[in-house]
Amino acid sequence: MNDAAWLPPEAWRAIGGRRIRVTGRGLLVDTVVDELRRACARFGGEVVRGPGGKPCDLDLGLGGDDALGPEGYELTAADEHTVLRAAHPHGLLHGMFHLVRLGDASSTGTFRPAVPRRMLDHWDNVDVHPVMGQVERGYAGGSLFWHNGAPRRDLPRVTAYARLLTACGINAVTLNNVNVHATEARLLTDRLGEVAELAGVFRRYGIRTHLSVSFAAPVLHGLDTADPADERVRHWWESTTVDVYATIPDFGGYLVKADSEGQPGPFTYGRSHADGANLLADALAPHGGVVHWRAFVYNHRQDWRDRGVDRARAAFDHFTPHDGAFRENVVLQVKHGPMDFQAREPAAPLIAAMPATRVGVEFQVTQEYTGQQRHVCYLAPMWSELLRGVHGPALAGFAAEFVAVANTGDDPFWTGHPLAQANLYAYGRLGWNPALEPAAVLDEWVTLTFPGAPARLRDALHAIMDDSWRTYERYTAPLGVGFMVRPGHHYGPDVDGYEYTRWGTYHHADRDGVGVDRTVATGTGCAGLYPPPWARIYESPDECPDELALFFHHLPYQHVLTGGGTVIQHIYDAHFAGAREAAEMRERWAEVAGLVPPEKYERVRELLDEQVRSAEEWRDQINTYFFRKSGVPDAKGRRIH
Amino acid sequence: MNDAAWLPPEAWRAIGGRRIRVTGRGLLVDTVVDELRRACARFGGEVVRGPGGKPCDLDLGLGGDDALGPEGYELTAADEHTVLRAAHPHGLLHGMFHLVRLGDASSTGTFRPAVPRRMLDHWDNVDVHPVMGQVERGYAGGSLFWHNGAPRRDLPRVTAYARLLTACGINAVTLNNVNVHATEARLLTDRLGEVAELAGVFRRYGIRTHLSVSFAAPVLHGLDTADPADERVRHWWESTTVDVYATIPDFGGYLVKADSEGQPGPFTYGRSHADGANLLADALAPHGGVVHWRAFVYNHRQDWRDRGVDRARAAFDHFTPHDGAFRENVVLQVKHGPMDFQAREPAAPLIAAMPATRVGVEFQVTQEYTGQQRHVCYLAPMWSELLRGVHGPALAGFAAEFVAVANTGDDPFWTGHPLAQANLYAYGRLGWNPALEPAAVLDEWVTLTFPGAPARLRDALHAIMDDSWRTYERYTAPLGVGFMVRPGHHYGPDVDGYEYTRWGTYHHADRDGVGVDRTVATGTGCAGLYPPPWARIYESPDECPDELALFFHHLPYQHVLTGGGTVIQHIYDAHFAGAREAAEMRERWAEVAGLVPPEKYERVRELLDEQVRSAEEWRDQINTYFFRKSGVPDAKGRRIH
Repeated sequence: MNDAAWLPPEAWRAIGGRRIRVTGRGLLVDTVVDELRRACARFGGEVVRGPGGKPCDLDLGLGGDDALGPEGYELTAADEHTVLRAAHPHGLLHGMFHLVRLGDASSTGTFRPAVPRRMLDHWDNVDVHPVMGQVERGYAGGSLFWHNGAPRRDLPRVTAYARLLTACGINAVTLNNVNVHATEARLLTDRLGEVAELAGVFRRYGIRTHLSVSFAAPVLHGLDTADPADERVRHWWESTTVDVYATIPDFGGYLVKADSEGQPGPFTYGRSHADGANLLADALAPHGGVVHWRAFVYNHRQDWRDRGVDRARAAFDHFTPHDGAFRENVVLQVKHGPMDFQAREPAAPLIAAMPATRVGVEFQVTQEYTGQQRHVCYLAPMWSELLRGVHGPALAGFAAEFVAVANTGDDPFWTGHPLAQANLYAYGRLGWNPALEPAAVLDEWVTLTFPGAPARLRDALHAIMDDSWRTYERYTAPLGVGFMVRPGHHYGPDVDGYEYTRWGTYHHADRDGVGVDRTVATGTGCAGLYPPPWARIYESPDECPDELALFFHHLPYQHVLTGGGTVIQHIYDAHFAGAREAAEMRERWAEVAGLVPPEKYERVRELLDEQVRSAEEWRDQINTYFFRKSGVPDAKGRRIH
Repeated sequence: MNDAAWLPPEAWRAIGGRRIRVTGRGLLVDTVVDELRRACARFGGEVVRGPGGKPCDLDLGLGGDDALGPEGYELTAADEHTVLRAAHPHGLLHGMFHLVRLGDASSTGTFRPAVPRRMLDHWDNVDVHPVMGQVERGYAGGSLFWHNGAPRRDLPRVTAYARLLTACGINAVTLNNVNVHATEARLLTDRLGEVAELAGVFRRYGIRTHLSVSFAAPVLHGLDTADPADERVRHWWESTTVDVYATIPDFGGYLVKADSEGQPGPFTYGRSHADGANLLADALAPHGGVVHWRAFVYNHRQDWRDRGVDRARAAFDHFTPHDGAFRENVVLQVKHGPMDFQAREPAAPLIAAMPATRVGVEFQVTQEYTGQQRHVCYLAPMWSELLRGVHGPALAGFAAEFVAVANTGDDPFWTGHPLAQANLYAYGRLGWNPALEPAAVLDEWVTLTFPGAPARLRDALHAIMDDSWRTYERYTAPLGVGFMVRPGHHYGPDVDGYEYTRWGTYHHADRDGVGVDRTVATGTGCAGLYPPPWARIYESPDECPDELALFFHHLPYQHVLTGGGTVIQHIYDAHFAGAREAAEMRERWAEVAGLVPPEKYERVRELLDEQVRSAEEWRDQINTYFFRKSGVPDAKGRRIH
């Protein structure tokens, strides 16, 4: 059976031993009662339903202020009597998990999510792709939903998964890969029963189910076109959607990656992306469904010789003319950065440039470019910086909702690396409340995941994880330049791997300097796409944050950064430091042997060996590459090969 | 049906219209008679068997001098009466194809092959590998022998193939990939019937059939070890081999890639490669079979930081201590160069260093590193230089036999690129007679393949193909340094693609210079492994042939080559010239539209578009890479990106 992650039975100890009253009716209230009864069966106490009777220690019920919204709740506590009130059953469910997470006395008040939808996108395929495997960019084994081309039907496991998701605040899932292959295109039609069965499990935990669909679905099902302007195409989507809702009444909607990296889209028919998205939106609207339309559109057949084209501008240039043209039930789903989930990028300029469009900000919990769940890389600090706007516009102010690519699979620890569970947990928690401190979220996760953790373990986990993203950044691509990974699988260093390709991801390193000139004055103009004051800040090499120096500027190796050192010495220093920090993580972990279940301890230990090896490889390749190019020796005389 | 390649019906026109006598008996004599009768049915004339009767125009029969050997023949012609004599039927078969190729009057004399075996190795799998496809490093479609995991059983096609092979002089084939996977390991046992069926076809054309086997075959078939010293293992090989010969009496033997790139081998059991090879040799010896033991052994987990290790030395260091330790029926199969079939390498030093061992020199007809049958690259000039010893020891003097990796598949043109047929033809012809001129061999091929070709077509083919290998060399990796290809699939440029990997294939380019120091004085010592005068020549940067300058030396960009220019200017000049020559090839081909069958014309035309595109990509990437590193502008001011 799977690891319990952040919901081990012990997490419910504080709930048990009490007399609990639950009022209200409906599926989610039943779920709350089931959960509480299970806790009482283990730790004592009892659950009574309905109003009246003698006083209770814990009282959950409807009747909260409508202003709490569909998921909010109010928590009051006095004299060991705790009252949870919500306007709707979904709020009761969240409130109950709040008590599990944080206990009752510690945090009374009113709670509601920052955005109405916090979605998790699975990039699962039904079939196993010969190169990508079953889960595209998945580092935690196969799919939880399908196996050998058929539904896996391990519903107890999906139930355990749904509980984990709702407990951290997620309320929507997409089941299948945005790259929709032939088999998966049938989930919308012939194989809808498989979707309905999973939706039934997620529904019990307040999670709505969505599907990735192919824009070419009408053609795959026999029409000769998928043109949004064709009446037969409109009819196909309408009638198909009617059938979907007849089977799954609370179906969430469609996710579409169109005209991107080879996926079909409205361009095929000379239509705009608004035409394409609205086609699906109109079919979904009568049923309350939404379209998630990905903005990941760029020319993936770029000529590396042409420095005038900039992938970082592509989505901005493409979508801003269509602001206001999308239906209300369209969510434009935009990756947090303008490139592709690098360890360091500025915010995507598009996100702040679509005031008349619902924008969903997309994060990547799966660690495609951040260590692939072989490296410890706690991502909440990165997301938090982006949401709060440390080095750019605060994304929390522009996001109508949050989306993330899942990092889970059929691995017994759910996420491959046991410590990568914290990323999924943190995504849910920050989606609910973007103002949370990453270290506080980690602390919650530690408390739940390692019940009764002694201070030594807690301290070690903070020491290993709190700054692990910055450590990863230090030993990989420097100063925001990104993409120095091995093409294809994206693991490990290859400085020139993408430099002369069609993918639009360059660093322009030569014997004099490195970085991409994205200034308005002399470069691609990308810096000018940002709202004030950021356009001005990014434009100037003296004001631009060092973290993004090479993202926006081509700088001489001897350029002095705002932090004081030269570019070349920063590269050397950061890489020696990052690799040393990885080694220190391993040492810290060795100190907690015996404080962690043996299988989990061993798994992490083995992965830390790989992380140390990989960090040293990054250090040596990056340092050697830039030493060979620049000819500048390390000021501290350390070994560069 | 397949293209006729170099045996179109018209090739037999000169044979027909005559009275032909054939004497002698046996399978191969029957084949000769069948071939001649087919020609006469089409072009007139008749074939009579047995001695006596009225005089004939063409008289084929046994009775030649024993010194002709098993495959030799003697050709005399007087007064329009041609006599072909051989000591054995196999010689008659070769002699008949000689007449097809060259006509009778033009070339009387005594002919026998330079080496007794000219083998063609197929890297075919029964199953389709998810990454490699069915034919490893195959660029001509799937296997001719298997399809969908089962024997293809297209015996007419295999018959046509066997005719093509014997007509150019090949007399042995290995059916399956040297990387032996689980399914293919069963060809030796459960699936031997499939091999026997194919062997039956090849036998009719004087070609013996061999199999690649896994050194771990005993384990794959249920033993707990494959240790050469274990009596059960010896017995397993003996009894398995008895069974093979009971089914295929003229079976050729086993080909083994052991302890190489992850394949199992004797090292697993602490035994030497002589122990391993002799184990199989002893099993084969009673039946007249041979072991081909590949010398492609190197550390494919090398640390790029360690410049003391040199893959180019690996086979030499590994095998020379075992010279004399191999059984007589072991052939040590050595790739022609010390690395891996690059467009330019010196001869492998091992080949000249095993006087007490039968050495088979291996060429690669499949164009893994020479354009993958999307580029015209006529390889005979390269092989000819190596065989004759233009820039190193003459391999023809050390080779006990020749082996080559096939470039054929189920493509209608056999080889993907129609002009790549010439490489297979030339391999067979040079294997028979290494002194042949590549341009003369090409001329033979043109005469046969394009019957009645007008001078314009013949001239165009020579213009396109004669120097195409040097053109390819010019626009790819410079001056013998090799390996600047995209990792994995090996197509197209990626200068640093292998530079920081474990594969041992480096160029060491930095801002001052490029190349690998393999001198004895300051480098890995590889230059010193060659016989005189080559060790001395290679050691000196002033004497070393320019073609190999960066293979043996790390040279400053401003080093003046023996040809007169600097290293950096040579790089620029060669790449501009190579890409221009590719464009000229395309222009020449356009001029022969209408002189070539339309499908063949179109296929070549499309591929030349790709070759021109690819050559420009090579030119620009290589030039940009070295300009960025060296900072030296092109002396002729051409555009470098």
